[in-house]
Amino acid sequence: MDQRTDRSSLPHVVIVGGGFAGLYTAKGLKGKPVRVTVIDRRNHHLFQPLLYQVATAALSPADIAVPIRSILRRQANATVLLAEATAVDLAQRAVVLEDGNRLSYDYLVLATGARHSYFGHDAWEPLAPGLKNLEDALEIRRRVLLAFEAAERETDPAIRNAQLTFVVVGGGPTGVELAGALAEIARYTMVQDFRSIDASQARIILVEAAPRILGTFPEPLARRAEEDLKRLGVEVRINTPVTEIKPDAVVLSGESIATYTALWAAGVTASPLAWTLGVPLDRAGRVLVEPDLTIKDHPEVFVLGDLASLTDPATGRPLPGVATVAIQQGNATAANIARTCAGQFYEPFVYKDRGSMATIGRARAIALLGRTQLKGFVAWLVWLIIHIYFLIGFENRILVMVQWIGAYFTQRRGARLITGEAAIKGKRPEPAVTQHSS
Amino acid sequence: MDQRTDRSSLPHVVIVGGGFAGLYTAKGLKGKPVRVTVIDRRNHHLFQPLLYQVATAALSPADIAVPIRSILRRQANATVLLAEATAVDLAQRAVVLEDGNRLSYDYLVLATGARHSYFGHDAWEPLAPGLKNLEDALEIRRRVLLAFEAAERETDPAIRNAQLTFVVVGGGPTGVELAGALAEIARYTMVQDFRSIDASQARIILVEAAPRILGTFPEPLARRAEEDLKRLGVEVRINTPVTEIKPDAVVLSGESIATYTALWAAGVTASPLAWTLGVPLDRAGRVLVEPDLTIKDHPEVFVLGDLASLTDPATGRPLPGVATVAIQQGNATAANIARTCAGQFYEPFVYKDRGSMATIGRARAIALLGRTQLKGFVAWLVWLIIHIYFLIGFENRILVMVQWIGAYFTQRRGARLITGEAAIKGKRPEPAVTQHSS
Repeated sequence: MDQRTDRSSLPHVVIVGGGFAGLYTAKGLKGKPVRVTVIDRRNHHLFQPLLYQVATAALSPADIAVPIRSILRRQANATVLLAEATAVDLAQRAVVLEDGNRLSYDYLVLATGARHSYFGHDAWEPLAPGLKNLEDALEIRRRVLLAFEAAERETDPAIRNAQLTFVVVGGGPTGVELAGALAEIARYTMVQDFRSIDASQARIILVEAAPRILGTFPEPLARRAEEDLKRLGVEVRINTPVTEIKPDAVVLSGESIATYTALWAAGVTASPLAWTLGVPLDRAGRVLVEPDLTIKDHPEVFVLGDLASLTDPATGRPLPGVATVAIQQGNATAANIARTCAGQFYEPFVYKDRGSMATIGRARAIALLGRTQLKGFVAWLVWLIIHIYFLIGFENRILVMVQWIGAYFTQRRGARLITGEAAIKGKRPEPAVTQHSS
Repeated sequence: MDQRTDRSSLPHVVIVGGGFAGLYTAKGLKGKPVRVTVIDRRNHHLFQPLLYQVATAALSPADIAVPIRSILRRQANATVLLAEATAVDLAQRAVVLEDGNRLSYDYLVLATGARHSYFGHDAWEPLAPGLKNLEDALEIRRRVLLAFEAAERETDPAIRNAQLTFVVVGGGPTGVELAGALAEIARYTMVQDFRSIDASQARIILVEAAPRILGTFPEPLARRAEEDLKRLGVEVRINTPVTEIKPDAVVLSGESIATYTALWAAGVTASPLAWTLGVPLDRAGRVLVEPDLTIKDHPEVFVLGDLASLTDPATGRPLPGVATVAIQQGNATAANIARTCAGQFYEPFVYKDRGSMATIGRARAIALLGRTQLKGFVAWLVWLIIHIYFLIGFENRILVMVQWIGAYFTQRRGARLITGEAAIKGKRPEPAVTQHSS
């Protein structure tokens, strides 16, 4: 009996989603007596923590994305399928694909992540794009660069000011990193490139509904981040809910800010695949999982990462939707599947909080590592080393480093390309999609 | 009187197109007593000789494209406008922009290049995309990568074979480089990544209507290139005109090849801006220019690069549409404009043929430098050094070199990303646009 025939009798682990959680599950099953199939509707794993750098033209898409096949090429028990899972049939133990085909499993790992949530205001989506995948990042890059180009051609000062105003909605790590990077682009990168406008006069406004930004960080660190943002020229508005987004303005409580470029970093909702399970979800659409990350009465189905809702017994708070949680859950799930293959029981998932961090522009960051709080340049160095270390493709690490070193010393950004649909139409940068507004 | 007011009385040179010809004209006017405005509908200058490497996933778009503003940032007399010129008003000396605004000039330099020509078969365009800009390259990359993905999922062997068949139409340098790079992807890059298919069984067919490929090269070099292509597994069909392109086949004289991926490298036509001049054009839509590159009776209007048609007095043949011609014409035109500002006469353009080259996959090329013919690895090294040297942004050179060195030793390609519209729809890779066929 050859190896291949032999292998077909092994338990089949189907992993839906090639993000951190899915990929680390697959890698953790290397050499184990299972067949692994990873399904993703995109061909690449994305290093999401650096996505804002693509959106702000510092890195190219290929620097932070690697084909999933390529990562798993040397793992003989893993197969990768470019496919979209549209539903799960728990009773028949099968995943339904977009072409109607079904893939049966012995173990299922769901890790399809989250999308933006506009809290019921779906009409805002085309006006204020969010940042979750490469297409989002390229669209944001396009809008930001086009805004400067349109301003350079504009003669009406009021319109020009609106074109040079950027509003970021949401003061979490993504919003803070976007606002900081936008301020740097305007103040340092663009400033020599234009003749009619003074790019450094651009206004970057970060809007947060809560009483402070970076609510998940300790208050001293968040305060420092706010100071660093202000030093870069970012206007930070706390206690300020957004009441409406129009093509030419963001309306706050009591004030309308004229702008053509609003970006959304305010909320997420779980992938719609969760709805097809018929199990209880939390308010953000995430699946309520057991301590071992399985769903109730289905020990063969795991839900991980941003798709899962689990309270951390150590803190009494829900686990955050960050890469480290997803990676640890992937490793833990691979270990549990290996255990059950060896006739042992699952162990509950225990999250080891190794810290969290956010950067503010070039050479500044905040980091919480255990009880240690780091700020400024030291925090940024730590951020840099950790992010380069975790970049999955080896070649990418070198490329990203070369670009960062180049950018650090020259303040230039290498990926300032406007691509895609008609770069110029009329005078103002227009949303690519039909405008929904009064 | 301040400098800016002073400057407004200087002659205004409007350059339409930021390719090699336009850019080198602008750079050549640095420090001269003129105001320069460069108009382009894209924000970046593209290093077209390496575009096929983006289409075949070896390089990222940002590696071969640099914002025009950024290139001209230190040239105080140059302004860059992201705008599309829709017509030229020779009588009023003005360029009409897409928003209806007019830009008046004292000197006009038209260098808007060329697009693909399907020789009257416009319905073939969505079925067999050509390679002229970054969007084209990303579309080709998407189709090629999706074809392998679709084949991995396919169970019908006939469909699978068609999915793994790639037809390149046109045996000039672009077609040869595309075919060679496709063969390398299939034989070396993809071969370990898939489980169901054997990527090295992919068929790559290069189709040329003329009696030989690389018609502009000496016969011994072209023959060597053909041998190198065959060694990589490319099927070369000469004397073979394409009679029809369908969504699932390319029809040659007397044979239909089942394929979902056809690429077009067979012909170009000049940019439609030429039509608005009301002056004589050649068969490919190019403007017939005087020896000094101006148009008849309009010594203030220059036409350069792929938009111009000029017979080389040295050879009696038309100048080829390559980067070196465009660069030399840009330099010559800047010099002529500077001459006339100094009260001197124009000089006719003299082309110095420094040679031509084409690569065939990794580590092989052919090069004609003066009378010296180079082949194989030596030619490839020369190709490598010249192309890196001419890459305009300094940072890009390092990035491209790192990627090439990495790719050379690992046979991997860093930019294998499928992005853009719905990666998967049904079983077969479908053209993104409506299919025109019986």
